[in-house]
Amino acid sequence: MKRLLYIPKERLYKIIFEAETREGKIFDIVLMMVILLSILLVVLESVPQIDEDYHALLKILEWIITLIFTAEYIVRIRIVKQPWKYVFSFYGIIDFLAVLPTYLSIIFVGSQSLVVIRAIRLLRVFRILKLNRYIYAGQNLGRALWASREKIFVFLFFVLNIVIIVGTLMYLIEGPEHGFSSIPKSIYWAIVTMTTVGYGDISPMTPLGQFLASIVMIVGYAIIAVPTGIVTVGIIRKSNRTNTQTCDNCMHGDHEDDAAFCKKCGQKLNA
Amino acid sequence: MKRLLYIPKERLYKIIFEAETREGKIFDIVLMMVILLSILLVVLESVPQIDEDYHALLKILEWIITLIFTAEYIVRIRIVKQPWKYVFSFYGIIDFLAVLPTYLSIIFVGSQSLVVIRAIRLLRVFRILKLNRYIYAGQNLGRALWASREKIFVFLFFVLNIVIIVGTLMYLIEGPEHGFSSIPKSIYWAIVTMTTVGYGDISPMTPLGQFLASIVMIVGYAIIAVPTGIVTVGIIRKSNRTNTQTCDNCMHGDHEDDAAFCKKCGQKLNA
Amino acid sequence: MKRLLYIPKERLYKIIFEAETREGKIFDIVLMMVILLSILLVVLESVPQIDEDYHALLKILEWIITLIFTAEYIVRIRIVKQPWKYVFSFYGIIDFLAVLPTYLSIIFVGSQSLVVIRAIRLLRVFRILKLNRYIYAGQNLGRALWASREKIFVFLFFVLNIVIIVGTLMYLIEGPEHGFSSIPKSIYWAIVTMTTVGYGDISPMTPLGQFLASIVMIVGYAIIAVPTGIVTVGIIRKSNRTNTQTCDNCMHGDHEDDAAFCKKCGQKLNA
Amino acid sequence: MKRLLYIPKERLYKIIFEAETREGKIFDIVLMMVILLSILLVVLESVPQIDEDYHALLKILEWIITLIFTAEYIVRIRIVKQPWKYVFSFYGIIDFLAVLPTYLSIIFVGSQSLVVIRAIRLLRVFRILKLNRYIYAGQNLGRALWASREKIFVFLFFVLNIVIIVGTLMYLIEGPEHGFSSIPKSIYWAIVTMTTVGYGDISPMTPLGQFLASIVMIVGYAIIAVPTGIVTVGIIRKSNRTNTQTCDNCMHGDHEDDAAFCKKCGQKLNA
Repeated sequence: MKRLLYIPKERLYKIIFEAETREGKIFDIVLMMVILLSILLVVLESVPQIDEDYHALLKILEWIITLIFTAEYIVRIRIVKQPWKYVFSFYGIIDFLAVLPTYLSIIFVGSQSLVVIRAIRLLRVFRILKLNRYIYAGQNLGRALWASREKIFVFLFFVLNIVIIVGTLMYLIEGPEHGFSSIPKSIYWAIVTMTTVGYGDISPMTPLGQFLASIVMIVGYAIIAVPTGIVTVGIIRKSNRTNTQTCDNCMHGDHEDDAAFCKKCGQKLNA
Repeated sequence: MKRLLYIPKERLYKIIFEAETREGKIFDIVLMMVILLSILLVVLESVPQIDEDYHALLKILEWIITLIFTAEYIVRIRIVKQPWKYVFSFYGIIDFLAVLPTYLSIIFVGSQSLVVIRAIRLLRVFRILKLNRYIYAGQNLGRALWASREKIFVFLFFVLNIVIIVGTLMYLIEGPEHGFSSIPKSIYWAIVTMTTVGYGDISPMTPLGQFLASIVMIVGYAIIAVPTGIVTVGIIRKSNRTNTQTCDNCMHGDHEDDAAFCKKCGQKLNA
Repeated sequence: MKRLLYIPKERLYKIIFEAETREGKIFDIVLMMVILLSILLVVLESVPQIDEDYHALLKILEWIITLIFTAEYIVRIRIVKQPWKYVFSFYGIIDFLAVLPTYLSIIFVGSQSLVVIRAIRLLRVFRILKLNRYIYAGQNLGRALWASREKIFVFLFFVLNIVIIVGTLMYLIEGPEHGFSSIPKSIYWAIVTMTTVGYGDISPMTPLGQFLASIVMIVGYAIIAVPTGIVTVGIIRKSNRTNTQTCDNCMHGDHEDDAAFCKKCGQKLNA
Repeated sequence: MKRLLYIPKERLYKIIFEAETREGKIFDIVLMMVILLSILLVVLESVPQIDEDYHALLKILEWIITLIFTAEYIVRIRIVKQPWKYVFSFYGIIDFLAVLPTYLSIIFVGSQSLVVIRAIRLLRVFRILKLNRYIYAGQNLGRALWASREKIFVFLFFVLNIVIIVGTLMYLIEGPEHGFSSIPKSIYWAIVTMTTVGYGDISPMTPLGQFLASIVMIVGYAIIAVPTGIVTVGIIRKSNRTNTQTCDNCMHGDHEDDAAFCKKCGQKLNA
């Protein structure tokens, strides 16, 4: 810690918040490994056999990781220009919640519900997206989905309607004696069927119920094509746009692959 | 109610049937919430535990909603120019069926089958599609599917044939002792398998049956690609078509939504 | 029958083999209904309850349909110019096999295995594809799949390899005590999992097995994208081609939508 | 063997390593059949019934195949110019591991774990990809997937995160009494659900658990669209790119495979 603080603030900022320098990259990768280790800890601790055999080791690792995260959190606050902005930012809150539960566990001994808060630590993993090359790919996907949001909403709305109507029908056809004990449970069954998950914990027994189920399945099968089509078209559009050149004249950068002239100002584009 | 009827007919029409004015938007959103609440009521009433504990509350809410819907139905009839046209329109019939069951429940006490009619109330939810921005997205999807109807029909026809043939074969291979008790039931199994739902309530036991099932699954897996391809192409086409204008100079017609100049010859495009 | 044979041969040919005339369309639709009825008979006869209650009726309908099919078969032979060519054509053989089992049932009384041959009658349903508008859509789909056959083969080859390797691994990991009693059965499980059918009749119990299964599922999930992509691209290509005009000069008819010149001979195309 | 070695080295090389000559094709097809037979042996030997009945036959075939593979391996080493390069190449190592287990079985009698190594023999099947026409299709698919690797990574990363978070939540909601005995097991359930496999060995029992599961399924259903879109776009791009040449006159580069003239200006294209 001490040695770290001797490093000039600006260089430290580059190391911790950016990933362009060699030290910045090393820092990011080490941090990523510690985060993944902390997630592994939460996961492993829930396995009764492992928790029993390695309880002490898990607790020690838990404290080491918490201390590393605490140190990192403090350093981050000290080197940013506007500490409060960081503290109340998305990552700031997650970073805080990542260290909180371990300290709380001293006060509230053996509190099971702390696992819930500790699970929030998982969200730290999204820092991996800071790694340069994935930002771009992630943003592209995000924008493609965002551009199709209305179509996706309409689609989900129709699916929800079908699922409610089918659930109600199945409740009336099969009834509680075949496991369809209420409309919410029948809707749950309809979602399980429509999405082709098909647990089989509830399944139709009467011929009429099986006939309706068959229709729902085929409809669900055909309907799976719709979001696929929407997203594919969204990705095609977005990826067409991102692959191109910038106009000399108006700096517009959103041209199709085969455009010869800028579509904004009519300037001829360079090949 | 009284105050509502004092509002001039034309303004009332804009509020209830359109969504451009501020009051119109508020009306639509309030109506939507009442509709969703009415659906929630139907769903919750079917849960034995909830129906037992809150029977009186559910009944009261049921009557309040029915009265709201009745008032809305009467107002709608009074302000449209051709009342009969509305009464026999799609939404008119649904609006009527949405209020009917509660009144019928006074005459036919405890009639379980009224739930069926009450479920029709779910269809009122499609009014949400009147919200401006979703109409366009919904129509586009609808037109894309409609344009592909012949391909989808041919596809479903092949699937149905495969399913009948496979069902018959499995009935002969596995037979009633492994749950394949009749051809319709075997067809039901084939649909469950082909659509990758896979409940597991019926599953092949003999090596030959499992071999045939494996082939059906892989075929079904490959076949899922076909409707996806059809719909994707349909959406690509429709979304291309709705965004297109033609250049005056070179007649090139393949422009993006936000293009102001022809990308082939640089000619300014008409807005 | 008699009256039918009084109709001139050529007109009869148009009625039975073509669908352009009014009588031809009526004939096709009636035939289709009889075929669908005959399939329904095979299916219903397999339901023990129905077979018991309506045995006599089913037998009578069976014979009526067989006689209709026999008459149709004889007329078809008599009016085609090359009877033997029809008899040994795909539809000729199916038409023959469709009538055979009922006659054989007189000789081999109560022979269960005749259902197998009778199931061949299902194939008659493919005559529906003769209905004009579906031929085109069906051919397009068929050509799109055919054009992608090599990619699909490579894909299936990889899937088969993964399935064999995963099946072998799971046999070694889980072993007979958890239902993975042999490699073929483990391969069956791998196919059930990879295609996301997931019956649940066999499922991994050991942590290692569940870990491997998880990887297989995610791989299967990602892999489902591949045939979809292949087929979508195939359909895009074929549908681009079929939407176009024919060159005046060389009669080449395979142009893209935005082609201004024939790509075979360089002749300017008509707009 | 002796006669084979009399054939000049160069011709032998063409037969064994290439597939252009008639003998080369025959060699490849025979080898492929032997490889498939050897895989069939591994698979069949694991079926207890078959192993019991045909133990001797399986053992003899096993040795015959091993000797054929050994001979092939030696010939391959002798005719390549740089034997060591072949020995340590991907196929060289697989060819070696394919013959090893049978010889080891003499030393380590009845060693079950040899099946693991013997399973490596399955990898020999990839030699089938040497068959000319499939190389191209396979490479294209591979390149399409490779070009989309970043998007696929980001997608898998999100899926893994959702699966870990959902798994943790379900562990807290359902708990060990409903089969969600640890977080890893809950994550396994989340993967089974999200990929729409749905075994049903573990399934939510509480209303809250079923509600969360429903959301996961619908999200999973929507998310299945994303890799499909990514791969489709990847394939569209790669297949466009591999079929392209540029017009000398107008530099238009968007031509189909079979185009002889530029579709924009009518200029003859170079072959």
